[in-house]
Amino acid sequence: MAKIGRRPGETATKESILDAATRQFGAHGYDATTIRSVAAEAGVDPALVLHFFGSKIELFVSAVRWPFDPAAEVPRVIGGGDRGSGRRLVDLFVSTWDAEDRRNPIVALLQAAMNQEPAGRHLRDVVEREILVPLLTALGSDRIELRANLVASQLLGLGVARYVLGFEPIASLPAEAVIDLVSPSVQRSLTGQL
Amino acid sequence: MAKIGRRPGETATKESILDAATRQFGAHGYDATTIRSVAAEAGVDPALVLHFFGSKIELFVSAVRWPFDPAAEVPRVIGGGDRGSGRRLVDLFVSTWDAEDRRNPIVALLQAAMNQEPAGRHLRDVVEREILVPLLTALGSDRIELRANLVASQLLGLGVARYVLGFEPIASLPAEAVIDLVSPSVQRSLTGQL
Repeated sequence: MAKIGRRPGETATKESILDAATRQFGAHGYDATTIRSVAAEAGVDPALVLHFFGSKIELFVSAVRWPFDPAAEVPRVIGGGDRGSGRRLVDLFVSTWDAEDRRNPIVALLQAAMNQEPAGRHLRDVVEREILVPLLTALGSDRIELRANLVASQLLGLGVARYVLGFEPIASLPAEAVIDLVSPSVQRSLTGQL
Repeated sequence: MAKIGRRPGETATKESILDAATRQFGAHGYDATTIRSVAAEAGVDPALVLHFFGSKIELFVSAVRWPFDPAAEVPRVIGGGDRGSGRRLVDLFVSTWDAEDRRNPIVALLQAAMNQEPAGRHLRDVVEREILVPLLTALGSDRIELRANLVASQLLGLGVARYVLGFEPIASLPAEAVIDLVSPSVQRSLTGQL
């Protein structure tokens, strides 16, 4: 049985657990990944995973990495001026999601968020607090919380249709075509008359 | 052990299993409902549930009843003319979802659809084939499949934000306010320039 106290190598062990968790949640989704399967890949006892992370959902929230850094990307969305902000925001999401080969941590996060309250909270925190509220504040929009909700529902709805449920033709369209189709509604939610 | 061959009362037994399943999936969601718990409420052996329905996901797809009849409601959405069709469609969804006390079979269907392919297929069949494609055909719109995808992603995104993830303020707004906010984008997807 592995010792579970603080010791040299703890950080490396946590990292290898997180790497295995990120890979498995991304490849197999939330339901099909288990504490046991993550522990096996990281070469540790399942009890150690629980000791570090508490539960499967807490491990998930720690392991799922948003595929871009909001603090770096939000200024780029704002940078070109108000009018193109909707298009640059949709481009940021679609390009990122497409690049991750569609079996990515964000699909797993969307799936988990529907059934697991902590995953839903995590998704809301990233999308609303870290991305949309700073963006809307910089754009000088009114009713920021409400606009953040509307944009989040548009982006999550697109994510569900294109990546999770695979609605056709939207799942197979090139990124550029999807961005053209969705940007006007997102722009209206960001800066238009509500 | 209950006999599982065809016999008098089979229809009544199936109905009582479906009633229990509809109630439990609606009240507790897909994950927390089991073949065993449904069988217990219906007063039958779990093996009989599996005999009739094959698996939990097949039971779910049989038990989840869409809360309105598309064949009756789609003509009402079309009836008032093209211009208000987006508003009447959003009103139909929001009013129905609100009336069901938000712990309804549709929330369970959204949740299950994210993780279970048959539930995703069922959701797509109802929303696209039974509701949106007939509606768009009657409206005389071009690019019907694509428009159906776009409207579906807007309505599902709203459902996720308002009913599943509980984003504020959109989760607490009166139905009328939500309909005002979402209808213009839906109208554009139904009949506007893409």
